[in-house]
Amino acid sequence: MSHYTKSPLMGQMMNQPLLISSIIEHADRYFGDNEIVSRRVEGDLHRTNYRECHARSRQLANALQSLGVKMGDRVATLAWNGYRHLEAYYAVSGSGAVLHTINPRLTPEHIAYIANHAEDQYLLFDLTFLPLVEAFAAHCNTIRGYILMCDPDRMPASSKIPHLMCYETLIAQHQADYCWPLFDENSAATLCYTSGTTGNPKGALYSHRSTVLHSYASAMPDALCVSGRDTVLPVVPMFHVNAWGLPYSVPLTGAKMVFPGPALDGKSLYELFESEQVTFSAGVPTVWLGLLTYVGQNKLTFSSFKRTVIGGSACPPSMMQTLRHQYGIDVVHAWGMTEMSPLGTACTLQSKHGALSEQDQQAILETQGHVIYGVDMKIVDDAGKALPWDGKTYGNLLVKGPWVISSYFKNEGGEVLQDGWFPTGDVATISADGYMRITDRSKDVIKSGGEWIGTIDLENIAMAHPAVLQAACIGIAHPKWDERPLLIVVKKPGMDVSKAELLEFYQGKIAKWWMPDDVVFADALPIGATGKILKNKIREQFKDYTLPSA
Amino acid sequence: MSHYTKSPLMGQMMNQPLLISSIIEHADRYFGDNEIVSRRVEGDLHRTNYRECHARSRQLANALQSLGVKMGDRVATLAWNGYRHLEAYYAVSGSGAVLHTINPRLTPEHIAYIANHAEDQYLLFDLTFLPLVEAFAAHCNTIRGYILMCDPDRMPASSKIPHLMCYETLIAQHQADYCWPLFDENSAATLCYTSGTTGNPKGALYSHRSTVLHSYASAMPDALCVSGRDTVLPVVPMFHVNAWGLPYSVPLTGAKMVFPGPALDGKSLYELFESEQVTFSAGVPTVWLGLLTYVGQNKLTFSSFKRTVIGGSACPPSMMQTLRHQYGIDVVHAWGMTEMSPLGTACTLQSKHGALSEQDQQAILETQGHVIYGVDMKIVDDAGKALPWDGKTYGNLLVKGPWVISSYFKNEGGEVLQDGWFPTGDVATISADGYMRITDRSKDVIKSGGEWIGTIDLENIAMAHPAVLQAACIGIAHPKWDERPLLIVVKKPGMDVSKAELLEFYQGKIAKWWMPDDVVFADALPIGATGKILKNKIREQFKDYTLPSA
Repeated sequence: MSHYTKSPLMGQMMNQPLLISSIIEHADRYFGDNEIVSRRVEGDLHRTNYRECHARSRQLANALQSLGVKMGDRVATLAWNGYRHLEAYYAVSGSGAVLHTINPRLTPEHIAYIANHAEDQYLLFDLTFLPLVEAFAAHCNTIRGYILMCDPDRMPASSKIPHLMCYETLIAQHQADYCWPLFDENSAATLCYTSGTTGNPKGALYSHRSTVLHSYASAMPDALCVSGRDTVLPVVPMFHVNAWGLPYSVPLTGAKMVFPGPALDGKSLYELFESEQVTFSAGVPTVWLGLLTYVGQNKLTFSSFKRTVIGGSACPPSMMQTLRHQYGIDVVHAWGMTEMSPLGTACTLQSKHGALSEQDQQAILETQGHVIYGVDMKIVDDAGKALPWDGKTYGNLLVKGPWVISSYFKNEGGEVLQDGWFPTGDVATISADGYMRITDRSKDVIKSGGEWIGTIDLENIAMAHPAVLQAACIGIAHPKWDERPLLIVVKKPGMDVSKAELLEFYQGKIAKWWMPDDVVFADALPIGATGKILKNKIREQFKDYTLPSA
Repeated sequence: MSHYTKSPLMGQMMNQPLLISSIIEHADRYFGDNEIVSRRVEGDLHRTNYRECHARSRQLANALQSLGVKMGDRVATLAWNGYRHLEAYYAVSGSGAVLHTINPRLTPEHIAYIANHAEDQYLLFDLTFLPLVEAFAAHCNTIRGYILMCDPDRMPASSKIPHLMCYETLIAQHQADYCWPLFDENSAATLCYTSGTTGNPKGALYSHRSTVLHSYASAMPDALCVSGRDTVLPVVPMFHVNAWGLPYSVPLTGAKMVFPGPALDGKSLYELFESEQVTFSAGVPTVWLGLLTYVGQNKLTFSSFKRTVIGGSACPPSMMQTLRHQYGIDVVHAWGMTEMSPLGTACTLQSKHGALSEQDQQAILETQGHVIYGVDMKIVDDAGKALPWDGKTYGNLLVKGPWVISSYFKNEGGEVLQDGWFPTGDVATISADGYMRITDRSKDVIKSGGEWIGTIDLENIAMAHPAVLQAACIGIAHPKWDERPLLIVVKKPGMDVSKAELLEFYQGKIAKWWMPDDVVFADALPIGATGKILKNKIREQFKDYTLPSA
């Protein structure tokens, strides 16, 4: 921060850097015996606490130091949500090295590209990913050793992975006497690559400062509202954007943590929610779809689950209503992105909304909400001119804040900011009182006759139809209008609906010229590594599609 | 922060300083029409909102600039909790000058000393304080102008105060076109002097960074838990330690703010709580005593008040139970000090405490709680050796954190830290799971036969007696035991209790050797400028007191 003007009178407060290690130290000192429960790859439930987590993190930090890992070196993980992954979070960043979380849903080629680009020195991975690591290890140029996160008796008898070590054997050789170093809070802490649907994947390089500030801000009552009275199950993966910061914000409050491991199907999640009495969770809509399907089919209820944050993609209003009205679970709609650590907005009501009707409150709760203090946003037209906050005008969404990137790792993609603001690639409206609604991705919006059609609205309406499981809307080239909407629909198992019925369902809900020109039924939609529907794949698939003439 | 080692790899996040101006900008942009209601010195209720507050803050910033106020200059206030005081908070600090809040309960001599020591350039003050300002203005060497916070028609026809200006006339001459400057976040923002019961008053000089971090931390669910769904009435004064940070943490959440002005009696507060539907408040025990007395005498109830933070002094358990059980108001016991911005700890339960009995939960809630993430604490003996966390061992309490001072303004009092820790002057125990309990001030603790007797425990037991309104316990010199406890008691109006009955009331509640040697009944106890009982005055009063021989 040194390039800003200093006042002739500086404050006289303690000069203490904001470091990730302070979180696990705090959790140990004040919440040492609070539980961390993990469903392991092996299938069993493992129980530990913040005190042990801190001790084992320091053992791992000592081990990494003995392996020659230095400040600023990248150490990669390829792992599910679990206690060993949490230990790696603190050991790597806390010691001044940089935690590079790799998304295991990427292809081996993709992973090798990222690992080489990041110049990873070591890779820690879960047993599940042994075949995956075997598939790409030979293509990694910088990795000096592979650490399999398991007990000695689960190590493979032989493997073609070079320098393969056992995590438990490794840390058992080291004491917990490690002292977390103090260093500049702007030092790099973690590295996460964007899914990279276009061009090469690009890395967001978070600092200790940005991570700690994001932890404070995201824990606040109008954001994730994380408290020591909660039991938190992060469904969002620790291998992507740090599970929305929960591995930091949960320990600092002392809340009980429950990790689901690889078992993200409806049945496994439901059983874990109930057995551990989870009160709060966070995930993308597709996960809740699976959970709700299971719970609905088996006529179950939740005994402790009270609140969930949904982000990653817009939550279909129908799902929000089911969670709220059928199961009594409050939904906080949130929005962010890899480049924002990731949280930018959360949707909560204010005192003044208490007087609104249930329906008007619902309309607000379906937006992505207002920015979390620290972040600021605006919408602009293609020329960069600020657009009005009227809840109707569509514009390109720009953000700034201390947990937003200024550039990508190794300056991939060059200058990314526009006058100091980060262009999100989202199209949004903002209401007069600052509630933002994502209407589309810039690259997904359908440009028809010079006007924009938001595909998310069209998809949400389709999803509200009782026979529709999933829907995606894309623009198809049109000789007269430039582009026109095509709707692709996956029906619920055992349910039926016709094209005519579906289009009839749109009547009165949209402007007439927004009506999809055609509907196609599909068995499934392509889903990406972060759980989002891959519209570019759908566009590729339908690139030669001809719309019926009107 | 620059003296810390930089990693070879720095994060690539936006370089954005943490500045107080960003709070009011955020409140304007996202919660612009949310209300700020103030009971004015004039007696009426004034209504404004965050948008107007931001505009008027910028007008004031322009006005101060035109008066020659520069970055780092001190601008003082002598004012109650109200909207104009809030404007001054943002205008002064936001523009890079330093807000010096003066406690009007100090003597004119005391105020002149502080104003001269701070080298205040201007003083903004409420109409109430006109006689006070007239009493000390002639003794202030550096103040170039006095700004009376009122409408033009309330200005005095004549006054001996030099360079007296009208606030409303002044800001009306300026536009709201002021742009908040960006500068180093470690720049000084506000200055607050300790009440200084011994030696000269000493100034705590907060920075923008410390204030913003304190705002985030104190708003979290396990601290003050400030949300946009609250209506907040800070009874704690803005003239002392920034009203526990509420003038910052409330606007950043968009909560409706209600300022009580000078009307802090039970009736006025109760009426304001009800008419504005206040949900959350914060204050010292003496204020709640007044409110509860009024509410009890008139057999009233609260229709919206749900939660309060009590600090400044330990809250008597009996008051906590009355609030909780009789009125359904949750009490969060908090602890801090001027040197800590001020919040250090807050007392909230964790998941694991859900299984405890009501009584065991109550015992935890009566402690000062655990530190808010960012602060760390320890207890040490007189030689500086760390003492065990067993909930029993008494020790000197030391703290550190980014919102704790490193030294006093102008280095008054010299080096204050002990190995990087700030000695609080409190004596405390810490339980195995990190709950801290203040047992005394170091200077109040009674040293009897080489052991320590905590006066707060003795006072709390007395306060639990139905006939006792207030109690204070001091050590009286004793030939054999060095010191022995004397209890001074104020009875409730119309109630009676004898010395023998009171001592009988202690039976079974304390170790036998803790029993007060004598009880004295008084009409009132001396209260200091910050609402605390002045034990040094009581000790002065009883310095020649002779205890009855056993």
